[in-house]
Order: sequence, then C-alpha cells, then structure tokens
Amino acid sequence: MKKTTNYNKVHELSKKSRVLQGISALLDWDQETYMPSGGAANRAEQMKTMAGLIHRQRTGKKYANALAKLIDLKSGKIVAIDLTPEQEAAAKEWRRDYIQDTALPTAFVEEFAKLCSQSILAWRSAKKDNSFQQFIPFLDRIVSMNRKKAELLGYQAHPYDALIDQYEPELTTKEVLQLFTKLRENITPMIKKIATQTNDNSFLHGKWDQTRQIEFSYKLLKEMGYDLDKGRLDFSSHPFSSASHPTDSRITTRIHPTSLTSNIMIILHEAGHALYEMGLPLEKFGSPLGDARSLGVHESQSRWWETRIGLSKPFWHHFLPLLKETFKGQLDHVVLDQFYKGVNKVEPGFIRVEADELTYPLHVILRFEMEKGLIEGSMKVREIPEIWNNKMKDYLGITPSTNSEGCLQDIHWSMGAFGYFPTYTMGNLYAAHLFEAFSKDHPDWEAHVAKGELVFIKDWLHQKIYKHGRRYSTHELLKEATGKPFTADAYLHYLKDKYSKIYKL
Amino acid sequence: MKKTTNYNKVHELSKKSRVLQGISALLDWDQETYMPSGGAANRAEQMKTMAGLIHRQRTGKKYANALAKLIDLKSGKIVAIDLTPEQEAAAKEWRRDYIQDTALPTAFVEEFAKLCSQSILAWRSAKKDNSFQQFIPFLDRIVSMNRKKAELLGYQAHPYDALIDQYEPELTTKEVLQLFTKLRENITPMIKKIATQTNDNSFLHGKWDQTRQIEFSYKLLKEMGYDLDKGRLDFSSHPFSSASHPTDSRITTRIHPTSLTSNIMIILHEAGHALYEMGLPLEKFGSPLGDARSLGVHESQSRWWETRIGLSKPFWHHFLPLLKETFKGQLDHVVLDQFYKGVNKVEPGFIRVEADELTYPLHVILRFEMEKGLIEGSMKVREIPEIWNNKMKDYLGITPSTNSEGCLQDIHWSMGAFGYFPTYTMGNLYAAHLFEAFSKDHPDWEAHVAKGELVFIKDWLHQKIYKHGRRYSTHELLKEATGKPFTADAYLHYLKDKYSKIYKL
Repeated sequence: MKKTTNYNKVHELSKKSRVLQGISALLDWDQETYMPSGGAANRAEQMKTMAGLIHRQRTGKKYANALAKLIDLKSGKIVAIDLTPEQEAAAKEWRRDYIQDTALPTAFVEEFAKLCSQSILAWRSAKKDNSFQQFIPFLDRIVSMNRKKAELLGYQAHPYDALIDQYEPELTTKEVLQLFTKLRENITPMIKKIATQTNDNSFLHGKWDQTRQIEFSYKLLKEMGYDLDKGRLDFSSHPFSSASHPTDSRITTRIHPTSLTSNIMIILHEAGHALYEMGLPLEKFGSPLGDARSLGVHESQSRWWETRIGLSKPFWHHFLPLLKETFKGQLDHVVLDQFYKGVNKVEPGFIRVEADELTYPLHVILRFEMEKGLIEGSMKVREIPEIWNNKMKDYLGITPSTNSEGCLQDIHWSMGAFGYFPTYTMGNLYAAHLFEAFSKDHPDWEAHVAKGELVFIKDWLHQKIYKHGRRYSTHELLKEATGKPFTADAYLHYLKDKYSKIYKL
Repeated sequence: MKKTTNYNKVHELSKKSRVLQGISALLDWDQETYMPSGGAANRAEQMKTMAGLIHRQRTGKKYANALAKLIDLKSGKIVAIDLTPEQEAAAKEWRRDYIQDTALPTAFVEEFAKLCSQSILAWRSAKKDNSFQQFIPFLDRIVSMNRKKAELLGYQAHPYDALIDQYEPELTTKEVLQLFTKLRENITPMIKKIATQTNDNSFLHGKWDQTRQIEFSYKLLKEMGYDLDKGRLDFSSHPFSSASHPTDSRITTRIHPTSLTSNIMIILHEAGHALYEMGLPLEKFGSPLGDARSLGVHESQSRWWETRIGLSKPFWHHFLPLLKETFKGQLDHVVLDQFYKGVNKVEPGFIRVEADELTYPLHVILRFEMEKGLIEGSMKVREIPEIWNNKMKDYLGITPSTNSEGCLQDIHWSMGAFGYFPTYTMGNLYAAHLFEAFSKDHPDWEAHVAKGELVFIKDWLHQKIYKHGRRYSTHELLKEATGKPFTADAYLHYLKDKYSKIYKL
C-alpha cells in the first residue's frame, strides 16, 4: 500500500501545478478573445505571477522529495517497488520534467524572458520597416542565449538536440536531418514539375457570408465529434486551441470573408488539437499519463484532420453538397473532382502559414537548417537574409522581394523558440505513419467519410493516441499504434501517390 | 528610507494576492459567461486551488513579519515611524484583513465551505419542491456555524456585529436596527397610501427587440463614461460586475424581451459598480488604498446610478427621445411625465429582486430582522416561514402563497452569507447622503442630465469616493465627501419628496 500512497502523493502535487497551468491557459485564451485592450499590462502581471507559482510548485522541495521516493532523480532508476509499468513510465516523465524545470537558473530564465519580450517588439518594428538590420542585435542575443540554454539543458551529440528535446522529447538533430533531407530531395522535384501545370481554383475566392461560414463550422465540429459541452468556438486574429482541461478544451478561428476554405481548414486543424486534449484520460489529469505526448504528436492530430481528412476526396464527396447548400447559388457549377483538385492546388509562395500541403514542409526544412546552423555556429545571424533567399530559390524556385516576406515573417525566433519549427513537419510525418495503420484497420474508411461519418476516426485515434497520454515515447507510441517502427516512407508514399493523381508527375 | 522600504515590501506582497484575486474574478466571470457546461467540476477545482493560494499568501509568515514592521498585529499600534497618514491608514486596513483572515481555523473554513456547497444544492431542490422542511437541517447548521463564526471573529455588543463587519466594517447591529426601524416606520405608511392609487405603466411591457436593447446599452455606457477599452459587456443569467483590475472591469446584463427597463436598470447598476472599480487609484492597486471601501459603499455607487439618475425625470428627458428612436413606433404616444411615473411605479410584490425603489428596503429590513433573531437565538429556523409571512403582511400588506416565493427565494442563506443583506439598503442610505452634497456642488445637475451629460457625475464621485480607496472608514468617507455626519435623513427626505410628487401622500 505504501507505494500507491507515494505515487498518489506525487500525482496530487503534480495535479496542483497542472490546475494552475489550466488557469494560465484560460488567461491566454481570454487575452486573445475577449480581454479589453486596456487590460494588457495587468494580464502580463497575472501571467508572470502564475508562471512563478507554477515553477515553484514544480521545483519545490516538497515535490522533489515526494518524487524521489518513486525514482532516483539523479540516475533515473525507479526506487519504488511494485509500481505498475504505467506508473513507472509516469515517474520517468515526471523526472524528465523536473530535470528540465530545474536545469535553468532563475536568473537565466528571467533574463531570457526579458530579452524575448523586448525582441518581440523589435521584430514587429523590424518587420514593419522591412529592416533585418534592426533585428540583428536582438537575434544575436537570442541565438547566443539559446546556445547557452542548450549547454544548461545538456545534450549528447549536438547542441540543437537540447532545444528540439523541449518540444519533441528524444528527437535528435541527426534524425531530423535525415528525415528532412529525404523529404526535400523527394518534394523539390515534384514541385518543379507541378510549377509548369495549371490548376484553376478561382471558384474558392469570392464573397463568402461570414454567418454562414460560422454555421458551417459548427456542422463540421459536430460531425467530428467535438463536444460543445466541453469546448467552444471563438474568434481571434491567430487561431489556436486552448488546453485547460479535457472538459474545457476551446478553439478559435478567423473568418476570411473572401476565402471559402481558410476557416474550414482552421476548424479541422484546431479541432484536431482539441479532440486530443478532450480524449486524454480524465482520472489521470495532472500526471504525465493525462498529458499530450509532445508537440509533434499534437501536430500529427491537427494535420491529420486538416490534410488527411479535410483535403481528401471522400470528405468533399459529403461536404461539398453541404457547402453548396450553405452558399446557395455560389458553387452550382463546381463538381467534386474540380473542387478536390482546387483545394489541393500546389503553388510556391513566400509565406509559410499560407502554404499548401506540398510546399509547407520546405518552409519548415529551410528554417530547421538555419536554426541548426545558427546554434552550431556554422552560420551567422547577419547571413540569414542571403541564405534564406538562396534556399527559397533552391527549394521553391522563388525569391522574396523583401525580408518582411522572407526571413522576418515568423514570430518564433523573436520569442526565443528555437527547436520548435521541426515539430510542424514531424506532425505530418507521424500522421502519415499512423494513417497507414488506420487505413488497414478501416479499409472502407473512404466509404464512411464519403457518407459524412467521421466519429469512427476519432475513436481510432482515441484508442491509438489520446488514451495513452505520455505513457510511451513518441517512437514507442507510433510503433504501438501501427506495429511498425516510424519512418518517412508513409508520408512520402502518400504525397507521391496523391499528387501524381492530381498532377502529371 | 527604511520605512518606505518596509511599506513597499508589504505592498508588494499584498499585491501578489490581489493579482491572484483578480485571476479568481476572471475565472468567476468566465464561469458565468462563456465556460462550456462540462467544465464546471474543473472550474470548481481551479477556484479552490486559487482560494488556497490566496489564503496562504495573505496569512503566511513572510507577509505577517513584513506587516508587523509597520503595525503591531496585536494592539494595532503603528510601529513604523514616519509613515504618511495615508500609509498609516493602509497599515490599519492590512492589519484588519490579516486578523479576519487568520481568525478562522482552516478546518472551520473547509467545513463551512463544504456545508455551503451542500446547502446550495439543498436550497435549490427545496425551492423547486416548495418545501422549507427539506431545507431546515441545512439552514440549522448554517445558522449554528455562523454563530460559531461570530465567536471566532469576535465582537463587542452583538454576535451579528461580527457578521455585518465582514461586508461593511464597523457597522453595528444597533446602528442598522435604528436606521432600519426609522425607515420602516416611514415607508410602511407611504406604501399603504400608495396601494389605493393607480399607476398604469403597461406601456413598458411589450416586445422589445433584443439587438436594439443591446445597442441602447452601449449608448448608455458611453454617456456614463464607462471605458470599453477597460471593460466589456456580456450576458449572464444573473447580472454582475467583475473587479479584476481597474483596467479590466467587466459587467454583464440579462435581456428581458418583454420589459423595456429591466436591462437599462441593470446596465446603470452594474456600470455604477464598475466605474468605482475603474476609478480606484492604479498605482495603489494591491494595497487597501487601491481597494473599494466596502460592500455598502459599492452598493451606494450602483444604486446611485440606477435610482438617483436612472429613475430621475431629467434622465428620461434626455433618454426617452433616444428610446423612442431606438424602438421606432412603439412609444410614440408616451409623454415624459407619464413615462417617469410609470418607471417609478410602487407595487408591493413577493420577490426582492423585482421590487421597486420604495418597497425594496422593506424586503431587506425583513431579512435583517430575521438574521438578527436567528444569530442571537431569539428565533428558530423552523419558525422562519410563519414569521416571514407575518412580516410581509405587516410591511407590504401581502402574504406569499408558497415558501418558494417567500422565505426560500434568496440564495444568500444557503451560501452561508449572514450579514450581507443590510448592505443593499445601506447603499441606498449612503447614496442619498452623498447625493445631497452632490446637488449642492452641482445645483444645476438636472439641467445637465436633461442634456444627456453624465460624465460630470462620475467625476464628482471620483473625487469624493473612487480615488480614496479604503483611506477612510465608511463614516469618515461620507463625512469627508459631504461635510456632514451620515444619517438617514437625506434618504427619507428624498423618498418622501419624490413619491409625494408622484402619488398623493
């Protein structure tokens, strides 16, 4: 009985900080949705206070002592006898979090936070003025503090490993490099071939009534099995999903009055994230077994719904008629094949967040290569614009005319987030690997989706992903779910197969 | 320099708990406005966690030691030399809070909280079933725990003093009894005379477009000087104002589709509360000098705008034409005198929250008399229905046909809140006392209001009330603002004068 008590004690203390994180998530959500503009400074103070409380709770002596009764904090050896395998996995994850949380001295964290808040302002102004020069001194410091951070967090082979590890545990620079190189080598020639072909999707542009767009969003959410008693849909300038608790998992969207599919893709993407949070085991809330595995796995869920379902033909077999009904008279002449081809138009562009499924990974790969270079020191901050533009030319065949639509477009670096970008594409790779198994388990999935049945998809993901929390490492989880070790094959096969059918390749 | 440092140290620690209270206020606001229903249990957990953190922050050793350098916590003697008079006042208020916060043992607080959450459910069900019998065992325990609470908090003359003191510091049972008896003796005969007279306000009832009601609310808020960059208007089943911070002070309303004035009165009332919060001195946030004086003073602000302004003739001189414009064709035949008389209709009813200005105090007086009796032991819980109904007959000339519309109507007792009711009527009394001084300072106030100018009223309240926080006691504040010690005279004079003009008295 003793070990259970020790385990429960850690869970109880850990749950406290998780509850506080849920409150922080609500503060964030409110800031982006309803907070009056004048409340910003107070909200920053609230966020800072919560961050301090959470950090103290997660690193305090009481917690460390309780955790040390389950697992040796130094060696990582389980010391409690008779923990279940699941509890042992939880203990290891708790230790991992503890080590990460205590690796950075408070002075470093505070200095870094201050630098980032200054850098975000500097980046905004630099982007507005189209002046990379303005941003250089800030980015220089951000890079050097990230290198310092990597040293503090520790790594085996490459300093960038430590930074990726914050977002996707155990993923290494070496693995990303192999995967991304393979992807790039496969995708670039496809894009070059496609560039010479036409795909007229002008029917997607027009005036799309905002109220009807919102109505359609709710239809979609309902079909996906998104429970509106445990979530809600609001509006914000940058769409996001907010993970306060499995029973309170909200999403936001942005309505583009002249784009038919922008909001639909956002809804699928954000609800994909939210379904994962809603599906995490309630009774394990506050332990690693009740948390999402990683950012990469999270992104696999959002991209799954957005690309594998929302950009599939059977999906539109069902939803195009509904869309025609929603926007009476505006899509009368459009047929399914044409619509399917239109929503899957491949067109190299400068802006990552507007990229199609096929060019998107190249935007991420470019950023990964630059981050790696900056962190290992093989590249200098001042060289960024030139290298950026050369890579854009190489990978996508286009050259940004300004840095604002080039190397200044993303907020991530100014926020100090190095190591984050790779998770976007890892999500696609994971999703493809999972989807192969899904389509074996459900060989008739297309027939179901074509009838508008989507809940069985959520149920499959629940069994394979949601319910496990952080029970397994990402690689273990992917193997458990599919019976096969993770590789890039499924993703490459999917892209080739799909785009060969749409274009002549 | 030393004392300033000590003062600032206390302010800093106190601000931390005030920031957390602001977060709790947002959690509350969200719960009543946007939270998905399934999130209720998680929200309760979040609120409990925050309450614990706030309590620990306000009673911890670190805080007590810092405070003890300003003021002797036992004797209340100021020990820091060279504090400004304002800082001395703050130190006394901090000590008062500290003593209140530490007076109740944690076990008592937890037991009480548990009892209340059970009692709220029991009360809901009892009200639904119209069975006071069901509620007796819970209310019995609530009363006895409130008696215990009074002992723990301490009092001089009457145990109920300790309970009132939580909401309106220094107000005593004796003072309330004197004021309320005088009120009752003056109001009851007026109501009896009015009961025989007619006042047809049927033109207020009809179908009032909800969108236009909301539009009108925003017009009103703008005229009052309510800053929508520092607040917002939402909807909830029970309207309230939320005091997170002077820069984030939100209100809610409820739109009644068949009542023209219900929403308007709510807006005036809640914005009255919110203007007070918005006007508190920002740089003193987190100290008593940045907090609202008391519930009674808060209610004086809401009732000021609702009754003294919103039920005045000059107000409608300006706003009736706007209302006619908003609801085109629906009020064409209504003239100002008729409208003014109609909104001031006096009609005894069973339900407190629906009562008019003249009968409302009698509802409060009845509850005060019963609470006093229950706490001092001169009355038993099981006697409540009979005594309630007798008093309703005496004061208002009507007898509830069920307990649900009688002694079971309010949530307060089930929430454990004894001593709260008197503040409703104290607010009216304070408002009247203040208004006498206001109308001397602004002898032409009616002419301004008749032109729709309202901001000068807010400015006067800012100088007299808002900016002082808890610098003065309620009685001091009222005397500072008016030059005269507080009595009930102004309120009685106002009611007699106003209702003699509307009715034959």
